[in-house]
Amino acid sequence: MRPGFTFATDLTVRFSETDAQGVVHNAVYLVWFEIARIDYLARFRDGYPGLRADGLEALTLEAHVRYRAPARFDDRLRVYARCGDLRGARFRFEYEIERGEEIVADGWTAHAVVDAELLRPTRMPGWLAEAIRDAEATAE
Amino acid sequence: MRPGFTFATDLTVRFSETDAQGVVHNAVYLVWFEIARIDYLARFRDGYPGLRADGLEALTLEAHVRYRAPARFDDRLRVYARCGDLRGARFRFEYEIERGEEIVADGWTAHAVVDAELLRPTRMPGWLAEAIRDAEATAE
Amino acid sequence: MRPGFTFATDLTVRFSETDAQGVVHNAVYLVWFEIARIDYLARFRDGYPGLRADGLEALTLEAHVRYRAPARFDDRLRVYARCGDLRGARFRFEYEIERGEEIVADGWTAHAVVDAELLRPTRMPGWLAEAIRDAEATAE
Amino acid sequence: MRPGFTFATDLTVRFSETDAQGVVHNAVYLVWFEIARIDYLARFRDGYPGLRADGLEALTLEAHVRYRAPARFDDRLRVYARCGDLRGARFRFEYEIERGEEIVADGWTAHAVVDAELLRPTRMPGWLAEAIRDAEATAE
Repeated sequence: MRPGFTFATDLTVRFSETDAQGVVHNAVYLVWFEIARIDYLARFRDGYPGLRADGLEALTLEAHVRYRAPARFDDRLRVYARCGDLRGARFRFEYEIERGEEIVADGWTAHAVVDAELLRPTRMPGWLAEAIRDAEATAE
Repeated sequence: MRPGFTFATDLTVRFSETDAQGVVHNAVYLVWFEIARIDYLARFRDGYPGLRADGLEALTLEAHVRYRAPARFDDRLRVYARCGDLRGARFRFEYEIERGEEIVADGWTAHAVVDAELLRPTRMPGWLAEAIRDAEATAE
Repeated sequence: MRPGFTFATDLTVRFSETDAQGVVHNAVYLVWFEIARIDYLARFRDGYPGLRADGLEALTLEAHVRYRAPARFDDRLRVYARCGDLRGARFRFEYEIERGEEIVADGWTAHAVVDAELLRPTRMPGWLAEAIRDAEATAE
Repeated sequence: MRPGFTFATDLTVRFSETDAQGVVHNAVYLVWFEIARIDYLARFRDGYPGLRADGLEALTLEAHVRYRAPARFDDRLRVYARCGDLRGARFRFEYEIERGEEIVADGWTAHAVVDAELLRPTRMPGWLAEAIRDAEATAE
Protein backbone atom coordinates (compact mmCIF):
# COMPACT_ATOMS: atom_id res chain seq x y z
CA MET A 1 0.00 0.00 0.00
CA ARG A 2 1.22 3.46 -0.93
CA PRO A 3 2.21 5.57 2.16
CA GLY A 4 -0.67 7.77 3.29
CA PHE A 5 -3.30 5.47 1.80
CA THR A 6 -5.23 2.62 3.40
CA PHE A 7 -7.37 1.75 0.41
CA ALA A 8 -7.02 1.07 -3.31
CA THR A 9 -9.16 -0.42 -6.04
CA ASP A 10 -7.94 -2.04 -9.25
CA LEU A 11 -9.27 -1.63 -12.74
CA THR A 12 -8.36 -2.43 -16.33
CA VAL A 13 -8.68 0.29 -18.97
CA ARG A 14 -11.67 -0.38 -21.23
CA PHE A 15 -11.41 0.13 -24.97
CA SER A 16 -14.44 2.44 -24.80
CA GLU A 17 -12.46 4.69 -22.42
CA THR A 18 -9.87 5.57 -25.05
CA ASP A 19 -10.15 8.35 -27.62
CA ALA A 20 -8.67 9.10 -31.04
CA GLN A 21 -5.42 10.28 -29.39
CA GLY A 22 -4.93 6.57 -28.60
CA VAL A 23 -5.05 7.25 -24.86
CA VAL A 24 -7.73 7.45 -22.19
CA HIS A 25 -10.09 10.41 -22.55
CA ASN A 26 -9.59 13.08 -19.87
CA ALA A 27 -13.16 12.84 -18.52
CA VAL A 28 -12.79 9.13 -17.71
CA TYR A 29 -10.51 9.84 -14.73
CA LEU A 30 -13.48 11.32 -12.87
CA VAL A 31 -15.36 8.06 -13.47
CA TRP A 32 -12.40 6.15 -11.98
CA PHE A 33 -12.24 8.49 -8.99
CA GLU A 34 -15.92 7.76 -8.41
CA ILE A 35 -15.42 4.00 -8.64
CA ALA A 36 -12.65 4.20 -6.00
CA ARG A 37 -14.79 6.47 -3.81
CA ILE A 38 -17.77 4.09 -3.95
CA ASP A 39 -15.56 1.04 -3.30
CA TYR A 40 -13.95 2.90 -0.40
CA LEU A 41 -17.33 3.61 1.20
CA ALA A 42 -18.66 0.10 0.44
CA ARG A 43 -16.58 -1.24 3.33
CA PHE A 44 -18.75 0.59 5.88
CA ARG A 45 -22.23 -0.84 6.45
CA ASP A 46 -23.92 -0.56 3.09
CA GLY A 47 -21.70 2.20 1.76
CA TYR A 48 -23.06 4.54 -0.85
CA PRO A 49 -26.15 2.43 -1.75
CA GLY A 50 -26.87 2.41 2.01
CA LEU A 51 -26.54 6.20 2.16
CA ARG A 52 -29.03 6.43 -0.71
CA ALA A 53 -31.39 3.95 1.00
CA ASP A 54 -31.34 6.31 4.03
CA GLY A 55 -32.66 9.14 1.85
CA LEU A 56 -29.25 10.79 1.63
CA GLU A 57 -27.11 11.61 -1.35
CA ALA A 58 -23.50 12.66 -1.73
CA LEU A 59 -23.10 15.56 -4.12
CA THR A 60 -19.84 16.34 -5.85
CA LEU A 61 -19.00 20.01 -5.31
CA GLU A 62 -15.60 20.20 -6.90
CA ALA A 63 -13.20 17.96 -8.82
CA HIS A 64 -9.57 18.25 -9.74
CA VAL A 65 -7.36 16.02 -11.89
CA ARG A 66 -3.66 16.20 -12.71
CA TYR A 67 -2.83 14.04 -15.74
CA ARG A 68 0.77 12.90 -15.32
CA ALA A 69 1.22 10.09 -17.88
CA PRO A 70 -1.24 8.89 -20.52
CA ALA A 71 -3.17 5.72 -19.65
CA ARG A 72 -3.81 3.29 -22.49
CA PHE A 73 -6.19 0.50 -23.43
CA ASP A 74 -5.75 -2.64 -21.31
CA ASP A 75 -3.52 -0.91 -18.74
CA ARG A 76 -3.88 -2.38 -15.25
CA LEU A 77 -4.35 0.56 -12.92
CA ARG A 78 -4.55 0.90 -9.15
CA VAL A 79 -6.61 3.81 -7.84
CA TYR A 80 -5.63 4.81 -4.28
CA ALA A 81 -8.23 6.77 -2.33
CA ARG A 82 -8.35 8.42 1.05
CA CYS A 83 -11.05 10.48 2.74
CA GLY A 84 -10.59 13.42 5.09
CA ASP A 85 -11.59 16.97 5.98
CA LEU A 86 -14.87 15.74 7.49
CA ARG A 87 -16.71 18.85 8.67
CA GLY A 88 -20.48 18.76 9.08
CA ALA A 89 -21.92 17.84 5.71
CA ARG A 90 -18.59 18.24 3.89
CA PHE A 91 -15.89 15.71 3.10
CA ARG A 92 -13.06 15.37 0.64
CA PHE A 93 -11.40 12.49 -1.22
CA GLU A 94 -7.86 12.37 -2.57
CA TYR A 95 -6.70 9.95 -5.25
CA GLU A 96 -3.60 8.59 -6.91
CA ILE A 97 -3.74 6.39 -9.97
CA GLU A 98 -0.75 4.14 -10.59
CA ARG A 99 0.39 1.76 -13.30
CA GLY A 100 3.00 -0.37 -11.61
CA GLU A 101 5.42 2.15 -10.07
CA GLU A 102 4.36 5.02 -12.29
CA ILE A 103 1.88 7.71 -11.26
CA VAL A 104 -0.62 8.16 -14.06
CA ALA A 105 -2.77 10.82 -12.41
CA ASP A 106 -3.74 12.28 -9.07
CA GLY A 107 -6.52 14.53 -7.90
CA TRP A 108 -9.25 15.22 -5.39
CA THR A 109 -12.97 15.73 -5.13
CA ALA A 110 -15.00 17.70 -2.57
CA HIS A 111 -18.45 16.53 -1.52
CA ALA A 112 -21.45 17.31 0.63
CA VAL A 113 -24.02 14.98 2.13
CA VAL A 114 -27.53 16.19 1.26
CA ASP A 115 -31.04 14.88 1.76
CA ALA A 116 -31.99 13.17 -1.50
CA GLU A 117 -35.28 15.02 -1.95
CA LEU A 118 -34.44 18.69 -1.44
CA LEU A 119 -30.66 18.40 -1.86
CA ARG A 120 -30.11 20.43 1.34
CA PRO A 121 -26.79 19.87 3.18
CA THR A 122 -27.12 17.36 6.01
CA ARG A 123 -24.48 16.34 8.56
CA MET A 124 -22.76 13.09 7.57
CA PRO A 125 -24.24 10.21 9.64
CA GLY A 126 -22.12 9.53 12.75
CA TRP A 127 -21.57 5.86 11.93
CA LEU A 128 -20.03 6.82 8.60
CA ALA A 129 -17.83 9.66 9.90
CA GLU A 130 -16.51 7.36 12.62
CA ALA A 131 -15.86 4.49 10.23
CA ILE A 132 -13.92 6.79 7.90
CA ARG A 133 -11.83 8.25 10.76
CA ASP A 134 -11.06 4.76 12.06
CA ALA A 135 -10.03 3.54 8.62
CA GLU A 136 -7.78 6.54 7.92
CA ALA A 137 -6.19 6.34 11.40
CA THR A 138 -4.39 3.19 10.24
CA ALA A 139 -2.54 5.03 7.44
CA GLU A 140 1.24 5.03 7.74
CA MET B 1 -35.29 15.12 -46.73
CA ARG B 2 -34.50 11.49 -47.41
CA PRO B 3 -37.49 9.56 -48.91
CA GLY B 4 -39.47 7.75 -46.23
CA PHE B 5 -38.41 10.18 -43.51
CA THR B 6 -40.09 13.37 -42.27
CA PHE B 7 -37.59 14.20 -39.55
CA ALA B 8 -33.85 14.52 -39.04
CA THR B 9 -31.55 15.99 -36.43
CA ASP B 10 -27.99 17.21 -36.99
CA LEU B 11 -24.97 16.65 -34.80
CA THR B 12 -21.21 17.04 -34.89
CA VAL B 13 -19.02 14.16 -33.70
CA ARG B 14 -17.46 14.96 -30.32
CA PHE B 15 -13.84 14.10 -29.62
CA SER B 16 -14.97 12.15 -26.54
CA GLU B 17 -17.05 9.91 -28.83
CA THR B 18 -13.99 8.54 -30.64
CA ASP B 19 -11.87 5.59 -29.52
CA ALA B 20 -8.30 4.39 -30.07
CA GLN B 21 -9.27 3.02 -33.50
CA GLY B 22 -9.51 6.70 -34.47
CA VAL B 23 -13.22 6.37 -35.22
CA VAL B 24 -16.45 6.69 -33.24
CA HIS B 25 -16.97 3.97 -30.63
CA ASN B 26 -19.72 1.50 -31.54
CA ALA B 27 -21.84 2.24 -28.43
CA VAL B 28 -22.15 5.94 -29.29
CA TYR B 29 -24.56 5.25 -32.16
CA LEU B 30 -27.21 4.25 -29.61
CA VAL B 31 -26.72 7.64 -27.93
CA TRP B 32 -27.26 9.33 -31.30
CA PHE B 33 -30.38 7.25 -32.00
CA GLU B 34 -31.72 8.41 -28.64
CA ILE B 35 -30.98 12.07 -29.39
CA ALA B 36 -32.89 11.79 -32.68
CA ARG B 37 -35.77 9.96 -30.96
CA ILE B 38 -36.06 12.62 -28.25
CA ASP B 39 -35.83 15.46 -30.80
CA TYR B 40 -38.47 13.70 -32.91
CA LEU B 41 -40.88 13.49 -29.96
CA ALA B 42 -40.08 17.05 -28.78
CA ARG B 43 -42.26 18.40 -31.60
CA PHE B 44 -45.42 17.03 -29.96
CA ARG B 45 -46.65 18.86 -26.86
CA ASP B 46 -43.80 18.48 -24.41
CA GLY B 47 -42.31 15.38 -26.01
CA TYR B 48 -40.32 12.99 -23.85
CA PRO B 49 -39.95 15.35 -20.83
CA GLY B 50 -43.76 15.76 -21.03
CA LEU B 51 -44.25 12.01 -21.06
CA ARG B 52 -42.07 11.80 -17.94
CA ALA B 53 -43.98 14.65 -16.27
CA ASP B 54 -47.16 12.56 -16.85
CA GLY B 55 -45.66 9.72 -14.82
CA LEU B 56 -44.84 7.70 -17.93
CA GLU B 57 -41.55 6.40 -19.21
CA ALA B 58 -40.47 4.94 -22.53
CA LEU B 59 -38.37 1.81 -22.10
CA THR B 60 -36.02 0.55 -24.77
CA LEU B 61 -36.75 -3.14 -25.40
CA GLU B 62 -34.43 -3.82 -28.28
CA ALA B 63 -31.79 -2.01 -30.33
CA HIS B 64 -30.07 -2.77 -33.59
CA VAL B 65 -27.23 -0.97 -35.38
CA ARG B 66 -25.60 -1.63 -38.75
CA TYR B 67 -22.25 0.16 -39.00
CA ARG B 68 -21.69 0.96 -42.67
CA ALA B 69 -18.82 3.46 -42.73
CA PRO B 70 -16.71 4.71 -39.81
CA ALA B 71 -17.67 8.12 -38.42
CA ARG B 72 -14.81 10.36 -37.32
CA PHE B 73 -14.16 13.31 -35.01
CA ASP B 74 -15.76 16.54 -36.22
CA ASP B 75 -17.93 14.82 -38.86
CA ARG B 76 -21.21 16.60 -39.48
CA LEU B 77 -23.90 13.92 -39.35
CA ARG B 78 -27.63 13.95 -40.05
CA VAL B 79 -29.68 11.39 -38.12
CA TYR B 80 -33.00 10.60 -39.84
CA ALA B 81 -35.70 9.08 -37.64
CA ARG B 82 -39.18 7.77 -38.20
CA CYS B 83 -41.64 6.14 -35.81
CA GLY B 84 -44.14 3.38 -36.61
CA ASP B 85 -45.63 0.05 -35.53
CA LEU B 86 -47.70 1.75 -32.83
CA ARG B 87 -49.63 -1.01 -31.07
CA GLY B 88 -50.89 -0.49 -27.53
CA ALA B 89 -47.84 0.27 -25.41
CA ARG B 90 -45.35 -0.62 -28.17
CA PHE B 91 -43.67 1.52 -30.80
CA ARG B 92 -40.60 1.35 -32.97
CA PHE B 93 -38.12 3.85 -34.35
CA GLU B 94 -35.98 3.48 -37.47
CA TYR B 95 -32.86 5.53 -38.14
CA GLU B 96 -30.40 6.39 -40.86
CA ILE B 97 -27.23 8.34 -40.16
CA GLU B 98 -25.69 10.19 -43.08
CA ARG B 99 -22.54 12.21 -43.72
CA GLY B 100 -23.35 14.18 -46.85
CA GLU B 101 -24.53 11.57 -49.36
CA GLU B 102 -22.94 8.64 -47.55
CA ILE B 103 -24.80 6.33 -45.18
CA VAL B 104 -22.73 5.91 -42.04
CA ALA B 105 -25.12 3.63 -40.14
CA ASP B 106 -28.72 2.58 -39.89
CA GLY B 107 -30.75 0.74 -37.28
CA TRP B 108 -33.89 0.57 -35.22
CA THR B 109 -35.05 0.49 -31.62
CA ALA B 110 -38.21 -1.04 -30.12
CA HIS B 111 -39.91 0.59 -27.13
CA ALA B 112 -42.78 0.31 -24.69
CA VAL B 113 -44.56 3.02 -22.75
CA VAL B 114 -44.67 2.13 -19.05
CA ASP B 115 -45.82 3.85 -15.89
CA ALA B 116 -42.70 5.36 -14.31
CA GLU B 117 -43.22 3.83 -10.88
CA LEU B 118 -43.92 0.14 -11.52
CA LEU B 119 -42.61 -0.01 -15.09
CA ARG B 120 -45.81 -1.78 -16.24
CA PRO B 121 -46.76 -1.42 -19.93
CA THR B 122 -49.30 1.34 -20.49
CA ARG B 123 -51.05 2.31 -23.74
CA MET B 124 -49.33 5.25 -25.46
CA PRO B 125 -51.35 8.44 -24.76
CA GLY B 126 -53.80 9.12 -27.63
CA TRP B 127 -52.48 12.65 -28.24
CA LEU B 128 -49.00 11.24 -28.86
CA ALA B 129 -50.07 8.30 -31.07
CA GLU B 130 -52.13 10.66 -33.18
CA ALA B 131 -49.37 13.24 -33.49
CA ILE B 132 -46.91 10.56 -34.61
CA ARG B 133 -49.36 9.12 -37.18
CA ASP B 134 -50.05 12.61 -38.54
CA ALA B 135 -46.35 13.41 -38.81
CA GLU B 136 -45.48 10.14 -40.56
CA ALA B 137 -48.45 10.47 -42.97
CA THR B 138 -46.57 13.29 -44.70
CA ALA B 139 -43.62 11.04 -45.65
CA GLU B 140 -43.04 10.63 -49.39
CA MET C 1 -21.39 -22.12 -16.66
CA ARG C 2 -24.55 -21.52 -18.66
CA PRO C 3 -25.19 -24.28 -21.28
CA GLY C 4 -23.84 -23.32 -24.70
CA PHE C 5 -21.22 -21.00 -23.22
CA THR C 6 -17.61 -21.69 -22.27
CA PHE C 7 -16.72 -18.17 -21.16
CA ALA C 8 -18.06 -15.41 -18.96
CA THR C 9 -16.74 -12.22 -17.46
CA ASP C 10 -18.01 -10.49 -14.31
CA LEU C 11 -18.62 -6.81 -13.74
CA THR C 12 -20.27 -4.47 -11.26
CA VAL C 13 -22.54 -1.71 -12.55
CA ARG C 14 -20.84 1.70 -12.25
CA PHE C 15 -22.78 4.71 -11.04
CA SER C 16 -21.74 6.55 -14.21
CA GLU C 17 -23.49 3.86 -16.26
CA THR C 18 -26.94 4.73 -14.90
CA ASP C 19 -29.25 7.42 -16.26
CA ALA C 20 -32.11 9.54 -14.90
CA GLN C 21 -34.51 6.58 -15.28
CA GLY C 22 -32.53 5.12 -12.35
CA VAL C 23 -31.35 2.19 -14.48
CA VAL C 24 -28.41 1.50 -16.77
CA HIS C 25 -28.43 3.52 -19.99
CA ASN C 26 -29.21 1.43 -23.09
CA ALA C 27 -25.90 2.23 -24.84
CA VAL C 28 -23.83 0.80 -21.98
CA TYR C 29 -24.73 -2.78 -22.87
CA LEU C 30 -22.61 -2.46 -26.02
CA VAL C 31 -19.68 -1.44 -23.82
CA TRP C 32 -20.23 -4.56 -21.69
CA PHE C 33 -20.47 -6.78 -24.79
CA GLU C 34 -17.11 -5.35 -25.87
CA ILE C 35 -15.54 -6.00 -22.48
CA ALA C 36 -16.66 -9.65 -22.63
CA ARG C 37 -15.45 -9.94 -26.24
CA ILE C 38 -12.01 -8.57 -25.39
CA ASP C 39 -11.73 -10.75 -22.27
CA TYR C 40 -12.80 -13.74 -24.36
CA LEU C 41 -10.04 -13.12 -26.91
CA ALA C 42 -7.44 -12.29 -24.24
CA ARG C 43 -7.11 -16.01 -23.50
CA PHE C 44 -5.49 -16.65 -26.89
CA ARG C 45 -1.91 -15.45 -27.32
CA ASP C 46 -2.15 -11.71 -26.80
CA GLY C 47 -5.82 -11.42 -27.69
CA TYR C 48 -7.12 -8.16 -29.09
CA PRO C 49 -4.05 -6.06 -28.18
CA GLY C 50 -2.03 -8.76 -29.98
CA LEU C 51 -4.26 -8.50 -33.03
CA ARG C 52 -3.66 -4.74 -33.03
CA ALA C 53 0.09 -5.22 -32.59
CA ASP C 54 -0.03 -7.39 -35.76
CA GLY C 55 -1.44 -4.45 -37.71
CA LEU C 56 -4.95 -5.89 -37.67
CA GLU C 57 -8.17 -4.49 -36.29
CA ALA C 58 -11.56 -5.99 -35.60
CA LEU C 59 -14.39 -3.80 -36.86
CA THR C 60 -17.91 -4.04 -35.51
CA LEU C 61 -20.33 -4.40 -38.44
CA GLU C 62 -23.57 -4.91 -36.62
CA ALA C 63 -24.87 -5.00 -33.05
CA HIS C 64 -28.07 -6.16 -31.49
CA VAL C 65 -29.33 -5.93 -27.90
CA ARG C 66 -32.50 -7.24 -26.27
CA TYR C 67 -33.12 -5.53 -22.91
CA ARG C 68 -35.00 -8.00 -20.75
CA ALA C 69 -34.81 -6.57 -17.22
CA PRO C 70 -33.35 -3.22 -16.12
CA ALA C 71 -29.86 -3.36 -14.61
CA ARG C 72 -29.18 -1.03 -11.69
CA PHE C 73 -26.24 0.63 -9.94
CA ASP C 74 -24.03 -1.82 -8.04
CA ASP C 75 -25.62 -4.92 -9.65
CA ARG C 76 -23.19 -7.81 -10.00
CA LEU C 77 -23.53 -9.04 -13.56
CA ARG C 78 -22.09 -11.98 -15.46
CA VAL C 79 -21.63 -11.51 -19.20
CA TYR C 80 -21.51 -14.82 -21.10
CA ALA C 81 -19.90 -14.71 -24.52
CA ARG C 82 -19.38 -17.19 -27.33
CA CYS C 83 -17.85 -16.78 -30.76
CA GLY C 84 -18.89 -18.55 -33.95
CA ASP C 85 -19.72 -18.20 -37.66
CA LEU C 86 -16.03 -17.84 -38.53
CA ARG C 87 -15.90 -17.35 -42.30
CA GLY C 88 -12.88 -15.64 -43.88
CA ALA C 89 -12.65 -12.21 -42.29
CA ARG C 90 -16.04 -12.47 -40.57
CA PHE C 91 -16.98 -13.67 -37.10
CA ARG C 92 -19.86 -13.24 -34.72
CA PHE C 93 -20.24 -13.03 -30.93
CA GLU C 94 -23.32 -13.88 -28.90
CA TYR C 95 -23.91 -12.66 -25.35
CA GLU C 96 -26.12 -13.20 -22.36
CA ILE C 97 -26.00 -10.94 -19.33
CA GLU C 98 -27.24 -12.38 -16.05
CA ARG C 99 -27.83 -11.12 -12.53
CA GLY C 100 -27.95 -14.27 -10.45
CA GLU C 101 -30.51 -16.48 -12.19
CA GLU C 102 -32.17 -13.65 -14.07
CA ILE C 103 -31.40 -12.74 -17.68
CA VAL C 104 -30.88 -8.99 -17.89
CA ALA C 105 -30.10 -8.78 -21.61
CA ASP C 106 -28.87 -10.79 -24.55
CA GLY C 107 -27.59 -9.89 -27.98
CA TRP C 108 -24.96 -10.38 -30.63
CA THR C 109 -22.37 -8.48 -32.61
CA ALA C 110 -20.95 -9.17 -36.09
CA HIS C 111 -17.33 -8.34 -36.90
CA ALA C 112 -14.70 -8.34 -39.60
CA VAL C 113 -10.93 -8.52 -39.29
CA VAL C 114 -9.32 -5.70 -41.30
CA ASP C 115 -5.82 -4.39 -41.78
CA ALA C 116 -5.46 -1.45 -39.42
CA GLU C 117 -4.22 0.99 -42.04
CA LEU C 118 -6.66 0.67 -44.95
CA LEU C 119 -9.46 -1.10 -43.05
CA ARG C 120 -9.71 -3.74 -45.82
CA PRO C 121 -11.13 -7.16 -44.82
CA THR C 122 -8.39 -9.68 -44.05
CA ARG C 123 -8.78 -13.36 -43.21
CA MET C 124 -8.70 -14.00 -39.46
CA PRO C 125 -5.21 -15.32 -38.50
CA GLY C 126 -5.21 -19.13 -38.41
CA TRP C 127 -3.92 -19.29 -34.82
CA LEU C 128 -6.90 -17.25 -33.64
CA ALA C 129 -9.57 -19.11 -35.66
CA GLU C 130 -8.22 -22.40 -34.36
CA ALA C 131 -8.07 -21.24 -30.77
CA ILE C 132 -11.68 -20.04 -30.94
CA ARG C 133 -12.90 -23.30 -32.51
CA ASP C 134 -11.06 -25.32 -29.85
CA ALA C 135 -12.51 -23.24 -27.03
CA GLU C 136 -16.08 -23.45 -28.35
CA ALA C 137 -15.78 -27.20 -28.98
CA THR C 138 -15.85 -27.72 -25.20
CA ALA C 139 -19.33 -26.14 -24.86
CA GLU C 140 -22.02 -28.45 -23.48
CA MET D 1 -21.83 37.92 -23.89
CA ARG D 2 -20.69 37.50 -20.31
CA PRO D 3 -18.03 40.10 -19.26
CA GLY D 4 -14.52 38.70 -19.66
CA PHE D 5 -15.56 36.23 -22.35
CA THR D 6 -15.56 36.60 -26.13
CA PHE D 7 -16.81 33.13 -26.96
CA ALA D 8 -19.55 30.71 -25.97
CA THR D 9 -21.04 27.52 -27.35
CA ASP D 10 -24.56 26.21 -26.72
CA LEU D 11 -25.62 22.68 -25.97
CA THR D 12 -28.65 20.75 -24.78
CA VAL D 13 -28.23 18.15 -22.03
CA ARG D 14 -28.50 14.62 -23.46
CA PHE D 15 -30.45 11.95 -21.62
CA SER D 16 -27.34 9.74 -21.72
CA GLU D 17 -25.47 12.42 -19.74
CA THR D 18 -27.69 12.04 -16.67
CA ASP D 19 -27.21 9.51 -13.88
CA ALA D 20 -29.42 7.83 -11.27
CA GLN D 21 -29.30 10.99 -9.12
CA GLY D 22 -31.50 12.47 -11.86
CA VAL D 23 -28.86 15.06 -12.73
CA VAL D 24 -25.88 15.25 -15.06
CA HIS D 25 -22.98 12.98 -14.09
CA ASN D 26 -19.95 14.88 -12.76
CA ALA D 27 -17.56 13.58 -15.47
CA VAL D 28 -19.70 15.01 -18.29
CA TYR D 29 -18.67 18.59 -17.50
CA LEU D 30 -15.16 17.79 -18.75
CA VAL D 31 -16.71 16.63 -22.04
CA TRP D 32 -18.56 19.95 -22.28
CA PHE D 33 -15.40 21.92 -21.50
CA GLU D 34 -13.71 20.06 -24.35
CA ILE D 35 -16.56 20.82 -26.76
CA ALA D 36 -16.29 24.54 -25.94
CA ARG D 37 -12.48 24.40 -26.25
CA ILE D 38 -12.65 22.74 -29.67
CA ASP D 39 -15.37 25.14 -30.89
CA TYR D 40 -13.28 28.04 -29.60
CA LEU D 41 -10.24 26.90 -31.60
CA ALA D 42 -12.31 26.02 -34.68
CA ARG D 43 -12.55 29.74 -35.50
CA PHE D 44 -8.82 29.91 -36.29
CA ARG D 45 -7.71 28.30 -39.55
CA ASP D 46 -8.67 24.65 -39.13
CA GLY D 47 -8.68 24.70 -35.34
CA TYR D 48 -8.00 21.49 -33.45
CA PRO D 49 -8.38 19.15 -36.48
CA GLY D 50 -5.88 21.46 -38.23
CA LEU D 51 -3.47 21.19 -35.30
CA ARG D 52 -3.74 17.39 -35.55
CA ALA D 53 -3.24 17.49 -39.33
CA ASP D 54 0.03 19.40 -38.63
CA GLY D 55 1.27 16.46 -36.53
CA LEU D 56 0.56 18.29 -33.28
CA GLU D 57 -1.67 17.36 -30.38
CA ALA D 58 -2.97 19.28 -27.42
CA LEU D 59 -2.63 17.32 -24.20
CA THR D 60 -4.73 18.05 -21.15
CA LEU D 61 -2.43 18.42 -18.13
CA GLU D 62 -4.89 19.43 -15.47
CA ALA D 63 -8.63 19.94 -15.11
CA HIS D 64 -10.77 21.57 -12.46
CA VAL D 65 -14.55 21.78 -12.10
CA ARG D 66 -16.72 23.56 -9.53
CA TYR D 67 -20.28 22.21 -9.61
CA ARG D 68 -22.57 25.04 -8.53
CA ALA D 69 -26.08 23.89 -9.45
CA PRO D 70 -27.17 20.50 -10.84
CA ALA D 71 -27.78 20.39 -14.60
CA ARG D 72 -30.69 18.25 -15.78
CA PHE D 73 -31.88 16.45 -18.88
CA ASP D 74 -32.93 18.79 -21.69
CA ASP D 75 -31.43 21.89 -20.03
CA ARG D 76 -30.23 24.47 -22.55
CA LEU D 77 -26.73 25.43 -21.46
CA ARG D 78 -24.24 28.04 -22.63
CA VAL D 79 -20.56 27.21 -22.13
CA TYR D 80 -18.35 30.31 -22.07
CA ALA D 81 -14.67 29.74 -22.79
CA ARG D 82 -11.59 31.92 -22.83
CA CYS D 83 -7.95 31.06 -23.42
CA GLY D 84 -4.91 32.64 -21.81
CA ASP D 85 -1.57 32.10 -20.09
CA LEU D 86 0.11 31.26 -23.41
CA ARG D 87 3.73 30.44 -22.58
CA GLY D 88 5.76 28.27 -24.96
CA ALA D 89 3.92 24.99 -25.26
CA ARG D 90 1.49 25.78 -22.44
CA PHE D 91 -1.94 27.35 -22.47
CA ARG D 92 -4.97 27.45 -20.23
CA PHE D 93 -8.74 27.59 -20.76
CA GLU D 94 -11.33 28.92 -18.35
CA TYR D 95 -15.03 28.08 -18.54
CA GLU D 96 -18.38 29.10 -17.17
CA ILE D 97 -21.51 27.10 -17.82
CA GLU D 98 -24.81 28.94 -17.54
CA ARG D 99 -28.48 28.06 -17.71
CA GLY D 100 -30.19 31.35 -18.38
CA GLU D 101 -28.88 33.68 -15.65
CA GLU D 102 -27.75 30.88 -13.35
CA ILE D 103 -24.18 29.61 -13.15
CA VAL D 104 -24.25 25.81 -13.29
CA ALA D 105 -20.50 25.21 -13.13
CA ASP D 106 -17.16 26.82 -13.77
CA GLY D 107 -13.65 25.50 -14.13
CA TRP D 108 -10.42 25.50 -16.05
CA THR D 109 -8.09 23.17 -17.90
CA ALA D 110 -4.34 23.42 -18.50
CA HIS D 111 -2.79 22.13 -21.72
CA ALA D 112 0.44 21.63 -23.62
CA VAL D 113 1.03 21.42 -27.35
CA VAL D 114 3.04 18.29 -28.17
CA ASP D 115 4.19 16.56 -31.33
CA ALA D 116 1.66 13.80 -31.99
CA GLU D 117 4.22 11.03 -32.34
CA LEU D 118 6.48 11.37 -29.31
CA LEU D 119 4.20 13.58 -27.22
CA ARG D 120 7.10 16.00 -26.55
CA PRO D 121 6.17 19.62 -25.71
CA THR D 122 6.33 21.89 -28.74
CA ARG D 123 5.82 25.65 -28.88
CA MET D 124 2.27 26.58 -29.94
CA PRO D 125 2.33 27.59 -33.65
CA GLY D 126 2.63 31.38 -34.01
CA TRP D 127 -0.50 31.70 -36.14
CA LEU D 128 -2.56 30.10 -33.38
CA ALA D 129 -1.03 32.06 -30.46
CA GLU D 130 -1.62 35.29 -32.36
CA ALA D 131 -5.19 34.40 -33.28
CA ILE D 132 -5.98 33.60 -29.64
CA ARG D 133 -4.41 36.84 -28.37
CA ASP D 134 -6.33 38.85 -30.96
CA ALA D 135 -9.61 37.18 -30.05
CA GLU D 136 -9.14 37.68 -26.30
CA ALA D 137 -8.07 41.32 -26.75
CA THR D 138 -11.68 42.13 -27.63
CA ALA D 139 -13.00 40.97 -24.23
CA GLU D 140 -14.71 43.67 -22.14
